[in-house]
Amino acid sequence: MGRYLEQINSPRDVRELSITQLEQLAGEIREEIISTVAKNGGHLAPNLGVVELTLALHRIFCTPRDKIIWDVGHQCYVHKLITGRREQFATLRTYGGLSGFPRPDESEHDAFGTGHSSTSISAALGMALARDLKGDRYAVVAVIGDGSMTGGMAYEALNHAGHLKKDLIVVLNDNEMSISANVGAMSGYLNRLRTDPKYSRGKDEIEQILRRIPSIGSTVVKVAERLKDSFKYLVVPGMLFEEMGFTYLGPIDGHNFSSLLNTLEQARTLGGPVLVHVITEKGRGYAPAVEKADKFHGIGPFDISSGNCLKKSDTSTYTEVFGRTLVKLAELDPAIVGITAAMCSGTGLGEFAKKFPRRFFDVGIAEQHAVTLAAGLASQGLKPVVAIYSTFLQRAYDQIIHDVCLQQLPVVFAVDRSGIVGDDGPTHHGLFDISYLRSSPNMTVMAPADENELQHMLHTALQLNGPCAVRYPRGTGLGVALDRHSRVLPVGRAEVLAEGKDITLLAVGNMVPVARRAAALLKERGVLATVINARFIKPLDEDCITRWAIRTGRLITVEENTLPGGFGSAVLELFAAKDITGMQVKCLGIADMFLEHGSQLILREKYGLTAENIVNQALHMISSQKVKGGKIIGLGGGA
Amino acid sequence: MGRYLEQINSPRDVRELSITQLEQLAGEIREEIISTVAKNGGHLAPNLGVVELTLALHRIFCTPRDKIIWDVGHQCYVHKLITGRREQFATLRTYGGLSGFPRPDESEHDAFGTGHSSTSISAALGMALARDLKGDRYAVVAVIGDGSMTGGMAYEALNHAGHLKKDLIVVLNDNEMSISANVGAMSGYLNRLRTDPKYSRGKDEIEQILRRIPSIGSTVVKVAERLKDSFKYLVVPGMLFEEMGFTYLGPIDGHNFSSLLNTLEQARTLGGPVLVHVITEKGRGYAPAVEKADKFHGIGPFDISSGNCLKKSDTSTYTEVFGRTLVKLAELDPAIVGITAAMCSGTGLGEFAKKFPRRFFDVGIAEQHAVTLAAGLASQGLKPVVAIYSTFLQRAYDQIIHDVCLQQLPVVFAVDRSGIVGDDGPTHHGLFDISYLRSSPNMTVMAPADENELQHMLHTALQLNGPCAVRYPRGTGLGVALDRHSRVLPVGRAEVLAEGKDITLLAVGNMVPVARRAAALLKERGVLATVINARFIKPLDEDCITRWAIRTGRLITVEENTLPGGFGSAVLELFAAKDITGMQVKCLGIADMFLEHGSQLILREKYGLTAENIVNQALHMISSQKVKGGKIIGLGGGA
Repeated sequence: MGRYLEQINSPRDVRELSITQLEQLAGEIREEIISTVAKNGGHLAPNLGVVELTLALHRIFCTPRDKIIWDVGHQCYVHKLITGRREQFATLRTYGGLSGFPRPDESEHDAFGTGHSSTSISAALGMALARDLKGDRYAVVAVIGDGSMTGGMAYEALNHAGHLKKDLIVVLNDNEMSISANVGAMSGYLNRLRTDPKYSRGKDEIEQILRRIPSIGSTVVKVAERLKDSFKYLVVPGMLFEEMGFTYLGPIDGHNFSSLLNTLEQARTLGGPVLVHVITEKGRGYAPAVEKADKFHGIGPFDISSGNCLKKSDTSTYTEVFGRTLVKLAELDPAIVGITAAMCSGTGLGEFAKKFPRRFFDVGIAEQHAVTLAAGLASQGLKPVVAIYSTFLQRAYDQIIHDVCLQQLPVVFAVDRSGIVGDDGPTHHGLFDISYLRSSPNMTVMAPADENELQHMLHTALQLNGPCAVRYPRGTGLGVALDRHSRVLPVGRAEVLAEGKDITLLAVGNMVPVARRAAALLKERGVLATVINARFIKPLDEDCITRWAIRTGRLITVEENTLPGGFGSAVLELFAAKDITGMQVKCLGIADMFLEHGSQLILREKYGLTAENIVNQALHMISSQKVKGGKIIGLGGGA
Repeated sequence: MGRYLEQINSPRDVRELSITQLEQLAGEIREEIISTVAKNGGHLAPNLGVVELTLALHRIFCTPRDKIIWDVGHQCYVHKLITGRREQFATLRTYGGLSGFPRPDESEHDAFGTGHSSTSISAALGMALARDLKGDRYAVVAVIGDGSMTGGMAYEALNHAGHLKKDLIVVLNDNEMSISANVGAMSGYLNRLRTDPKYSRGKDEIEQILRRIPSIGSTVVKVAERLKDSFKYLVVPGMLFEEMGFTYLGPIDGHNFSSLLNTLEQARTLGGPVLVHVITEKGRGYAPAVEKADKFHGIGPFDISSGNCLKKSDTSTYTEVFGRTLVKLAELDPAIVGITAAMCSGTGLGEFAKKFPRRFFDVGIAEQHAVTLAAGLASQGLKPVVAIYSTFLQRAYDQIIHDVCLQQLPVVFAVDRSGIVGDDGPTHHGLFDISYLRSSPNMTVMAPADENELQHMLHTALQLNGPCAVRYPRGTGLGVALDRHSRVLPVGRAEVLAEGKDITLLAVGNMVPVARRAAALLKERGVLATVINARFIKPLDEDCITRWAIRTGRLITVEENTLPGGFGSAVLELFAAKDITGMQVKCLGIADMFLEHGSQLILREKYGLTAENIVNQALHMISSQKVKGGKIIGLGGGA
């Protein structure tokens, strides 16, 4: 018998299969996803968990007319496979290929782009409101994990949706974990719903009792009424959601097609806000992923039979160096505490959490709370280190300004995954942090040129006694030797790596080695470049930068960040403030745009963050100045 | 008999009063607050609602050892009056005087600075964790309104606190409204707790019934257990909070000292996370404020006997012009919908809400949800206008980037209270929006020079079919004539208001009239200035700006925003990108700092956003260039 998967060209084809056939299809889809992710890397465990759920959703709902919004979106592979993208599936997460997240510009079946957590109910409610205002008729379904339910935004949306009473379905995909093990009272609540036998349905039994109640309670009508009300709590286990205005259905087995299809059909016809509680198993059908759902949440290429990762580099990642350094520093300073927003191992805090369990806090996917919690800790003399990816820290922008910077509290932000992150694409690149962090008053912002400098910067940040951010990129460092002991760097001081009279290359973070390479290439062309590692984005080393800029008359800034408001912009502001005119300045970075997905290497090439591009820009500056010489007079070498 | 208030120099003095004396003191405090706010303006109704609650808190808890964190913080006047700041109270919200919000740098009794909503539980939990890590002993109390409970951050913190089980008290100050009437399912839930007789305690009755149950239910032990569990829902009305891991106490009358003192004492000794549900009346004790709690939430000077506002200007505010224009445009275009985050009248949407109730959405204090809801609406062809104050829009920074800009959805942001807001101070100034909005790709950003231009900009924004923000200041416009019909402005085109050969003054928003005045003053000194109204912060009118910059050789940018990453910075980036060198550029705006509270007039003077300062800077540029002439050669007039 042939495979079914090759016959699925649109969701319509799924609707024609029997349950037995669906079960076979589910197996084929798992194979396809495992083999593709084993090659390309990706979010394996979440997708293996939602195979049956996705197929059932496409049986009951009819996209693109009906709208399915995938919260976070990394669990959309099954959806992509059955919505006309099977043949491109091998290109998943590669440059020019399918995105690992839903994208409306990729398919009409992707109703809304996602990537960050907890947005789906808001977007779904917006669609439901639009539908009703326009008099259209279609279903809107948000599929949200229990992890995403720890994000406050999901609660804001539930609160609003429960109030408005529009037709809207929220499928709670409860796999008992976010990326790491789940935390929070809501998680405990869901766990009780799942496991407490008192919560499991016994509607018939209850109703029998209910009928007998009046015989004892009739003397006090009020009490009888109250009792009747209380039975809702027995019959309807999801009373918390009911109190929020939702009809609660579940919990149901998310790998059983019959219950899925019955319950989703019930949800479709019920009307009003409905929450369907579906229990799934992360990694389902692939033993290594079930056992280590955390590791297999998002993973690079791996060997299918063993589950081992391929070509793991010997070089430490920035994340690892951060984690190890923090442990070392925390051993010496009991005031240091670590905070993560559901990314314990992703941010390198695993070892810290093991060594200092009382000083480690995983707050769930709740970046806003993470930052103000840190402010509260700092206000009482502790030294919190908040490790959050650059792109997710955007969620806490207001808290950074309002709770940390305004009160000048010593919170250290370990801003991992800054710059181009690669395969996860536009929702995950960390291209804005220099702009939003440096415009926050009282903030110190650093970026290490290599993993060794990261050690010193973390050490420095913890000595500052004020708000401080250290941004560093995703992936391995340069493989440089690591100093045995970290030390305090002079604040606001840059490092001059090479002196040359023709041009200054002022780079920050991971662009420093690129600038050095550019200087070497320029030397071959007879151009002598000064290379400066800025180290501090804020405060800038004003003296060093202006001195070399004036001395060489030409300066190129290089950063892996958006240009508007970025590091180069800070340097331009400095020159304007100091009345330094007449020199040529060029800012290299990411132009004002979102970047697609693709490897870091490809994207850096494409967007000019290379030594070659720096060289070209430098040569162009030198030659154009000669041409324009009569009009624009640079200060020349050694002015 | 003398007044008690004059004898209260610290919370200790409150602890010595009898309940009768406390009641008298409460009356005196109300008088004091009413008379001060009638003069200085301020948050009247919230403070009148918490007089008894504040006194009771200071009876049971002992600040500064115990920590009280006031969510939002505008209800801190009573607290300030009895914590050693009575004599300065007349200076409330005036320049150099007491802040209208808690500030740790003002008093050791202010444990944490607040201003934005929903931060208190996070900060309190951070303090509780610090306390336990350090082995200290004190109580931590967050006082949060039911309005602030609609903010997702409060839920993130509740979720975490309920999980950690640390000693922590959350006082839910439930006055049945945020600033406008409250919205959301949580509000409905709280309302049921307050008003449903089934929820009011009848513990004894219930227990009588409970004892009889086994006689009928003994056949099925499981069912009996389940029943017993269900009784918790009767005995404990706040089951939603109980499910979140909190012990729920209440609801209690927030104006009755006995219940307040008894319940707070119970909370203090209970241990673990406790939520005390206190019902208060906003505006209590001053009839006009009770009747119009919305108007008296935050109010300018008013006449005490009538409750009427004083010296209301005839000139329309920007907010009013925005509101009226939106109504006019919405009459013609049914796709326009309006969204506010609990600021219906504050953002000028009152008339819109009345005229188009189906197209108006108040989401509660939930800016994140507001923005992604708008994205959902826009994805289905509607034209949402999200009206949020600049400072609060910071909460939705990630949603602006991730949900709106990345998907290029036509959401219009009406960014009210941009720039210096005045009396509310550092937590409320809108000094960052140019920086964070212009660094978001695909965003168009405008700022009107006067209220008439605001009409055209709103009109333009709604025609753009992409993300767009219009920022405008707090307060009255210039009193210019309003065009009868709004029109579409050419996108990315500036307006040259005066031509002069010596210098270009490039201003944006409310700084345009200031620049015009500066040009007039310069003319008296023989300096001829070009004045440009930038109109668009993004995209810049590159041709116009570079042409005049080159022609005059000197340029001053003027904006009411922080300088890092601001408008001036955008102009510097433009010049660098276009290889335009050799000219003098000066950026005027707010240096990288937080501003204190004080009138807009005083602060603009102090921070140099005046015609006089522009004149001085211009003259300085002209004279310094002459001095440096040999080294720096400007392009001079007409190059």
